[in-house]
Amino acid sequence: MKIFVTGGAGFIGSHLVDRLLQDDHELIVFDNLSTGQERFLEGASRHKHFRMIRGDLLDTARLKQAMSGCEFVFHLAANADVRFGLGHPYKDLEQNTIATFNVLEAMRADGIRKMAFASTGSIYGEPEKFPTPETDSFPIQTSLYGASKLAGEGLIEAYSEGFDFQSYIFRFVSILGERYTHGHIFDFVKSLRSNPLKLRVLGDGHQKKSYLYVKDCMEAMLLAVDKAKDKVNIFNLGTDEYCEVNHSIELITKYLGLQPELEYTGGVRGWVGDSPFIFLDCQKIRKIGWRPTLSISEGIIKTLDYLKSNPWVLNMRN
Amino acid sequence: MKIFVTGGAGFIGSHLVDRLLQDDHELIVFDNLSTGQERFLEGASRHKHFRMIRGDLLDTARLKQAMSGCEFVFHLAANADVRFGLGHPYKDLEQNTIATFNVLEAMRADGIRKMAFASTGSIYGEPEKFPTPETDSFPIQTSLYGASKLAGEGLIEAYSEGFDFQSYIFRFVSILGERYTHGHIFDFVKSLRSNPLKLRVLGDGHQKKSYLYVKDCMEAMLLAVDKAKDKVNIFNLGTDEYCEVNHSIELITKYLGLQPELEYTGGVRGWVGDSPFIFLDCQKIRKIGWRPTLSISEGIIKTLDYLKSNPWVLNMRN
Repeated sequence: MKIFVTGGAGFIGSHLVDRLLQDDHELIVFDNLSTGQERFLEGASRHKHFRMIRGDLLDTARLKQAMSGCEFVFHLAANADVRFGLGHPYKDLEQNTIATFNVLEAMRADGIRKMAFASTGSIYGEPEKFPTPETDSFPIQTSLYGASKLAGEGLIEAYSEGFDFQSYIFRFVSILGERYTHGHIFDFVKSLRSNPLKLRVLGDGHQKKSYLYVKDCMEAMLLAVDKAKDKVNIFNLGTDEYCEVNHSIELITKYLGLQPELEYTGGVRGWVGDSPFIFLDCQKIRKIGWRPTLSISEGIIKTLDYLKSNPWVLNMRN
Repeated sequence: MKIFVTGGAGFIGSHLVDRLLQDDHELIVFDNLSTGQERFLEGASRHKHFRMIRGDLLDTARLKQAMSGCEFVFHLAANADVRFGLGHPYKDLEQNTIATFNVLEAMRADGIRKMAFASTGSIYGEPEKFPTPETDSFPIQTSLYGASKLAGEGLIEAYSEGFDFQSYIFRFVSILGERYTHGHIFDFVKSLRSNPLKLRVLGDGHQKKSYLYVKDCMEAMLLAVDKAKDKVNIFNLGTDEYCEVNHSIELITKYLGLQPELEYTGGVRGWVGDSPFIFLDCQKIRKIGWRPTLSISEGIIKTLDYLKSNPWVLNMRN
């Protein structure tokens, strides 16, 4: 199948690319390299069925041309930064909501009607039910990132109903593993490299988060696309556990052989809009046969191994 | 209080304007008159505390300037057309989602942090629970209109959390009454004027819908703003009843003294994305003391009275 991957040079996107090439699909990657890395596609680029097009989802003409002839779209490109949304509110609207609209319109123009979308567990805001199922009560958004992904989901659902698309919406917890370039482990390791004696921790350290290993995430997505046949297929993707930020810190400092003084900024949230507890109910994806292979702790170690072998990542403009 | 009303020249907006002037507020109406009517503001325009600014929500400079110094924003301007969304997908994104973002940004720029938003019961898609409460399970959108309003809600919630806004989100059923310019009664009356012998009905006529009289809607909104004090206050607004499209037709044809042959297009939905059953649980607004004064049938008669005395409305470009 000829598959279009937006954000294919990113952390998650490049893993998807590698995995799809294993299955002999023909791939067009569309990425503006704003956060994606061509280095992540070094292996893929040697493959004859791989093509990278550098382009922006706001350039609708280029997008339509690039997508032409594809049969399935994985739309992973996004502004994935939850924390700094309040600093530039238009960014989430433009890069997540409007960009998703542009992807849908390009698909419609070319008669492509199957797509998968990387959404987020942040969309549940601060739910009352844990683990939180896909059918939890109507959420109230607490971040511009969550709001922009909710808007993307809504558009995809309306296109599915109105233009007979079939769609797969994946609500991820935070993803860990090789090519990890963004998130709390990144921040902690980077900070400890510059000052091994002190670590500033946003919030009280008791925020409870869930994480998933990137390769487990890939298998879940591909399995869902293979097995689920509704018009709109929504899946939470995560592990059946969560861990406190303090537990992450313990693993990280032990791994690095450090004993920094911990300085908490205080409060139950790391920042305005931070969700103090993310734990998704993943029964739905488990029911079709998926299981994660790595625990959260194992995922954290994999990530630390990766950052250790790829110190250049920590110097990326981020 | 100095209040800014977007869409203040529209059906619902102009009623709100009249009602707010009764309470001696100072008003700025911002409307591009794309569907709004200056005639609806004839009474209001004689009021010394009323000012109308013709402008578009996409003109952010004009919007910011017009809003300056206001203390509360009622954001009612929207593309309110649910049925033809698939004919121009960008319209809902632009006029509902992006326009709402522009309103929020203009508020933020001027330090205004209280607002109310006209959302819709269509946001529930095709729910399983009737009457549908505000906390019903995470909805799946079935129309671009619903998706665009969901996106608007999400943005407002994220601004409430992130920028300390206080917001009121009203999910309306269809509104009826004086100045009604859009919807099934309008369509039926207009059609029967051109051919009194035959009436084409979209769907099977068994679609169950709920309606609310516009002045009852106004009282509900003002009461909610007065009494509810959460950061984000979401209210369904409707009557505690619903009626079949066939029942509306009966009332309309009886009122007009006609016995047209009914021609059903068939299917349970009037069009792709039509919700075959809308019936909202309005316990939450009732709990703070609101009751509708008119039943659905009474609201339909009021609307027919209005269209009878204002035949010009039926000739509007629509």
